[in-house]
Amino acid sequence: MEYRYKDAIIINPLMRGGIVPKDVQERLFKEGWTEVGYTLCFDCIEGRSSLITKPPIKRHLEDVAKFFGGDVAEHTFGCRAAQYAVMKAAKEAAVERKLKKIVIADPNSHYSTNIAAEMAGLQVVEPPHTGYPEYKVTLEAYEEKIDAIGEPALVMATHADPYYGNISPVEELGKLCYEKEIPFLVNAAYTGGVMPINIKDIKADFLTLSAHKSMASLAPLGYLVTTYEWSKRVFAVSKAAPDWTGRGFGKKIPGLFGCSVGGLPLASSIMSFPLVKKRVKEWPEWEKKINAFIDKLEEIDDLMLLGERPHRHHLMHFETPVFWEISKHHRRRGFFLAEEMFRRGIVGLHKGLSKHVKLSIYGLTDEEIEKVVNAFEEIAAMKE
Amino acid sequence: MEYRYKDAIIINPLMRGGIVPKDVQERLFKEGWTEVGYTLCFDCIEGRSSLITKPPIKRHLEDVAKFFGGDVAEHTFGCRAAQYAVMKAAKEAAVERKLKKIVIADPNSHYSTNIAAEMAGLQVVEPPHTGYPEYKVTLEAYEEKIDAIGEPALVMATHADPYYGNISPVEELGKLCYEKEIPFLVNAAYTGGVMPINIKDIKADFLTLSAHKSMASLAPLGYLVTTYEWSKRVFAVSKAAPDWTGRGFGKKIPGLFGCSVGGLPLASSIMSFPLVKKRVKEWPEWEKKINAFIDKLEEIDDLMLLGERPHRHHLMHFETPVFWEISKHHRRRGFFLAEEMFRRGIVGLHKGLSKHVKLSIYGLTDEEIEKVVNAFEEIAAMKE
Repeated sequence: MEYRYKDAIIINPLMRGGIVPKDVQERLFKEGWTEVGYTLCFDCIEGRSSLITKPPIKRHLEDVAKFFGGDVAEHTFGCRAAQYAVMKAAKEAAVERKLKKIVIADPNSHYSTNIAAEMAGLQVVEPPHTGYPEYKVTLEAYEEKIDAIGEPALVMATHADPYYGNISPVEELGKLCYEKEIPFLVNAAYTGGVMPINIKDIKADFLTLSAHKSMASLAPLGYLVTTYEWSKRVFAVSKAAPDWTGRGFGKKIPGLFGCSVGGLPLASSIMSFPLVKKRVKEWPEWEKKINAFIDKLEEIDDLMLLGERPHRHHLMHFETPVFWEISKHHRRRGFFLAEEMFRRGIVGLHKGLSKHVKLSIYGLTDEEIEKVVNAFEEIAAMKE
Repeated sequence: MEYRYKDAIIINPLMRGGIVPKDVQERLFKEGWTEVGYTLCFDCIEGRSSLITKPPIKRHLEDVAKFFGGDVAEHTFGCRAAQYAVMKAAKEAAVERKLKKIVIADPNSHYSTNIAAEMAGLQVVEPPHTGYPEYKVTLEAYEEKIDAIGEPALVMATHADPYYGNISPVEELGKLCYEKEIPFLVNAAYTGGVMPINIKDIKADFLTLSAHKSMASLAPLGYLVTTYEWSKRVFAVSKAAPDWTGRGFGKKIPGLFGCSVGGLPLASSIMSFPLVKKRVKEWPEWEKKINAFIDKLEEIDDLMLLGERPHRHHLMHFETPVFWEISKHHRRRGFFLAEEMFRRGIVGLHKGLSKHVKLSIYGLTDEEIEKVVNAFEEIAAMKE
């Protein structure tokens, strides 16, 4: 097994927020955290990894909760597991309160949202987006859908969506859900740890986060941040007891498989978190850089950004008819684009696709960004 | 955050099978696998990490399935997630076939088994064990319980249990379940990757594995190995479609959150697997070493092994009245034992406990094993 991408410029938009700082990588290896999967658990006497005080996992989770404006946080097996825990809790609450077993979720949601709903037994209903070329999901679309459904189990919004990098109207939606007393989940897998988000400000009940997507951490790791009120349900401990031993598992949280272990990903996230807190403050500068980059890329042939303008997230989706044209006559067909990029030391475009590209320059140096622009220019010039 | 245990002799029985080989640790770091959580996913065009051919994840999973005598394997977020997937599938099948929503599980099961059952909505019923000092679970106890229940959704056995390291009568139980047409799960979290196990031989339908417990891998990572027949249900792909976009997620497996990501733990497991396959063949030698170690430890004061004899697993549980005596007069109370061990470069005893200890010497050198024996001897001699 070979890793071919060392020292390449990574532009995969799923990955840019998850790049693990060099010094964290070194610490993990040199200090010995990689010796065994359970290096966080040597001093566990608390019965659940999120309660461990040495190393300070408990304090870290308090920090995470506070940073995102929540009351309680638990680490999870990725953002998908966090979303599942929310859907499960919302479904249970819906059954009790006789609400509809429906989650209203945006049509640009990540697949893990839909799978989490499927796992929990919630049906997904979508407000429509505005279509080409912006694909925005408006407050009005949500409002109409909520009015049509009546009492859904949950409303959810993908803070920045994985298709176009559009930012959902989470503040207005939070206000609306608060007024209508509908539980509200914001999936910040692509934003939390990159740009500011605070669930108190947006009146959300749940925030789901991906440490390996946006918090400079190894995978798989996510966080679920919530309020005191919802924590009682979503982080409720085990109540079951087998019949003969009658053993109890009173520290374990069934919504999170009892204990979410953590392992090396959690160690990496704890080490990266100070950087994450710092970099979020620098977001406005990145917004400028990203929009400047978009301008430059749109100067190339017929490239055009899809999604909202000005762009408010680092995930960019371009329509690239010129590359599609080239691919038709290229012996590597759609694969030529990713391969040409890789020849230039750039990795992360989806292989085989050339009609559209999704990429990010978040966290790259100015020099690296220039290399990316130049690479696209050179490749576009391949058109006969 | 500080890691205090580098180069210590680890005797925690959860960890000995999960020690990551030094060269794998080095490769992960030096080759660049730690750069970002998604280093396995750069070449993913298949839509699920388990289908990726570059690096050879698909082939690795075929290897894993074959090695354990199964037809199909998927990687999971730890053995607990694998158990959950089984329980969920068994529950669904039970509802369809009008079986009881009950899983018969041994009374020495790991808590994750019980939590997985709770998550899936199955009630746990336990055959009794034989009590002090062996705590064995016999075929007869299972048979009686199966007869009493009639048609349970699932029978499960913990191959080696986490309390005493007893080996369940999985061959006989497999035969019995096969005859009675009851789905049978073996949780090999403490054995698969350390000692031989083959689900064809034992006629099991499911085998759950912990890569970070017994397959020399980073955490969190597990595997679920099953038959073709059950794979259709337990690894069934998503069928849901949201109403407006009508998007389908036909490669994603809801029982496993769509895609179990993998990340660095999976990279480590792929690298460790050749070693794992090799070391399993050396198990008979370890059985001898372990029983010789037990003899030596039982020569110390009133130390006595609990669990079956001869011992057939590397997890050992000793009753240690002498340490309990010492702890009563020690200013560090129950903590003295783990602390005295650590002063001698040995780590992994559960902190605060002195009446009983659980430990393992699996994979240690003869010299290290001697150090462990000496440490216990020295500490026992502290008795006034």
